[in-house]
Amino acid sequence: MITLSSDFGTPYPAAMKGVILQESDARLVDVAHDFPRQDVRASAFWLREVLPHFPPAVHLVVVDPGVGTDRDALVVRSGDHALVGPDNGVLVPVARELGPDESFEAFTIAVDDPASATFHGRDVFAPAAATVHEAGVESFDGLDGFEATDEVVDLAFPAPSVTADAASGEVLVVDGFGNAITNVPGNALTDHFGTRVTVNDESVPARRTYAAVDPGDRLATVGSHGNVELAVNQGRGDEAFGLAAGDEVVLSPDT
Amino acid sequence: MITLSSDFGTPYPAAMKGVILQESDARLVDVAHDFPRQDVRASAFWLREVLPHFPPAVHLVVVDPGVGTDRDALVVRSGDHALVGPDNGVLVPVARELGPDESFEAFTIAVDDPASATFHGRDVFAPAAATVHEAGVESFDGLDGFEATDEVVDLAFPAPSVTADAASGEVLVVDGFGNAITNVPGNALTDHFGTRVTVNDESVPARRTYAAVDPGDRLATVGSHGNVELAVNQGRGDEAFGLAAGDEVVLSPDT
Amino acid sequence: MITLSSDFGTPYPAAMKGVILQESDARLVDVAHDFPRQDVRASAFWLREVLPHFPPAVHLVVVDPGVGTDRDALVVRSGDHALVGPDNGVLVPVARELGPDESFEAFTIAVDDPASATFHGRDVFAPAAATVHEAGVESFDGLDGFEATDEVVDLAFPAPSVTADAASGEVLVVDGFGNAITNVPGNALTDHFGTRVTVNDESVPARRTYAAVDPGDRLATVGSHGNVELAVNQGRGDEAFGLAAGDEVVLSPDT
Repeated sequence: MITLSSDFGTPYPAAMKGVILQESDARLVDVAHDFPRQDVRASAFWLREVLPHFPPAVHLVVVDPGVGTDRDALVVRSGDHALVGPDNGVLVPVARELGPDESFEAFTIAVDDPASATFHGRDVFAPAAATVHEAGVESFDGLDGFEATDEVVDLAFPAPSVTADAASGEVLVVDGFGNAITNVPGNALTDHFGTRVTVNDESVPARRTYAAVDPGDRLATVGSHGNVELAVNQGRGDEAFGLAAGDEVVLSPDT
Repeated sequence: MITLSSDFGTPYPAAMKGVILQESDARLVDVAHDFPRQDVRASAFWLREVLPHFPPAVHLVVVDPGVGTDRDALVVRSGDHALVGPDNGVLVPVARELGPDESFEAFTIAVDDPASATFHGRDVFAPAAATVHEAGVESFDGLDGFEATDEVVDLAFPAPSVTADAASGEVLVVDGFGNAITNVPGNALTDHFGTRVTVNDESVPARRTYAAVDPGDRLATVGSHGNVELAVNQGRGDEAFGLAAGDEVVLSPDT
Repeated sequence: MITLSSDFGTPYPAAMKGVILQESDARLVDVAHDFPRQDVRASAFWLREVLPHFPPAVHLVVVDPGVGTDRDALVVRSGDHALVGPDNGVLVPVARELGPDESFEAFTIAVDDPASATFHGRDVFAPAAATVHEAGVESFDGLDGFEATDEVVDLAFPAPSVTADAASGEVLVVDGFGNAITNVPGNALTDHFGTRVTVNDESVPARRTYAAVDPGDRLATVGSHGNVELAVNQGRGDEAFGLAAGDEVVLSPDT
């Protein structure tokens, strides 16, 4: 099984699929091709949310603002999974989730010049994903063209600050529903379910479900990712709270 | 085969696919993940249009504004098909189409607490769809966790009024081309093909094909769903007629 | 394998998939369903870019502004591939790429009246694609309903003008990143990599990669399709250059 993730929109991902299907009969599963354009951090967040639900697979990931520069092309092996993509940090947070003890191994992919300077997804990463799939996640590193490396660009999500009185952090991503997903862990909110909390000086209900408030009303809740999320029942939380990715969020009990 | 329909956008549907693929090798086919957000009626319309074209399958449907409330989770068996989704009516119109004589059977899905309160698609419906697929549409109800029920939330599309002089109804949905699809049956229009009709006091040609009028011109036609549709050849009917879902449409011969 | 391309958005393509899966177990691969609406030329461009990357397959293509008129329905055989779609030119440029020596054969599909006048994708082309797939690309033309024809609507992309001093052409399509893709061949630019060129009287760097200029800066480069592309690193070239599909582009060395 090979999953595919990118910020390509269409039809570029289909070219990657064609290239893979020249070499492999793998099942292909799209994760998303509308990740925020060239936003490595948001893409890393979504990959960490979604890929751990999959059985062992090769995951092709192309969010690559540095395409054509000398950034490395990587295969990251983590548990029974392999991740294939650029060395810009996008693979790292999910790699820490897929393997035991947050461990993973990384390998550089030899890139022939003159591969296309603008479409490494098709010309470098898709062929590598097919090769890794056909050789097997356990065995691909015995092939020519893959070399172990200890130097991988890291990516960490910003750390929230949680005290007894308040939690502060920031919006990591806004999802398609308009929910503003923060880096504040859900347990900062769950004690307050049924009461109200202050979000950036505005008082809103803390609730376990969207539908616990009237349609159009704001709430703070804990999303499926386990983080605090600022939402509107049947509406857009980002607009109602005036929040976008990167904005600061301070949360405190409303006393 | 398992089809997937939702209003999730991306990448949430991929998490559902991962969960299913942990339990099943079923072929997965996306129907759409951009149904109008939390619009149960529009989603029910599209499901009724599309799913009857499929061979026997399990159809996972998650359009669920009441997620996390005490609404039931359902499997609906209709002919050789099973539908899995929330008990809010979205499954009912298509269930009436898939089986003989508009009949179907419904079963509640036992939901463990504490499943995620915000993502039952991943945590309740996707596992249930995999279970139904693996056990078989004929047999799943012999398993623990599925209980027959006669109490299902119904959903009916509004009934049009058709007389010899006029037909009145409303816009059910607008499709991606901008065609305003009404609940008025096509046979109210077909007698007038080649002449003109009055739509909310404006005279437009009634034609069998979009291309029978010049690009940019309005027409009334009968869509692939069999209903009257208000359209523009190579343009957007919703904008040209000033119509949105829910708006009233009165149609009469232009004499 | 059957690939699917259209300008349908969702959920119409799923109806085509259901119809195919009634007759065939073929692997289904989506190319794109958001081709520019009813834009035959842009769709032809993307098909020529993407389909040659696939192994032998049946390619279902429905971009069909003349649906319901008397335009023919076609199967085009080119090399080991078959293309199924309307006779409006959209299949021709890629057909010239898939076979040897730009050669291809065309066959009309018998269309039963009264197929739906508005959804031939579902009612004519999808069943034909399934039939061609099941009979085989080499053999389908022995079946009833397919008749060889020499009269096919042609489609040619506009020819650029390239001299020693300047190259002029036009924007063929804008991709999802906002890159304005022209019909000017890349070799008109590659000699100038590392220097500046004049694009419609404005001087910009000519570079091999987007990342060779600062984020937000404009450049002229050669895209993965081999043509000159006007772009912005991590931004939208169409907006920064004020260019849309069909606009003229004149390119000369900046001396």
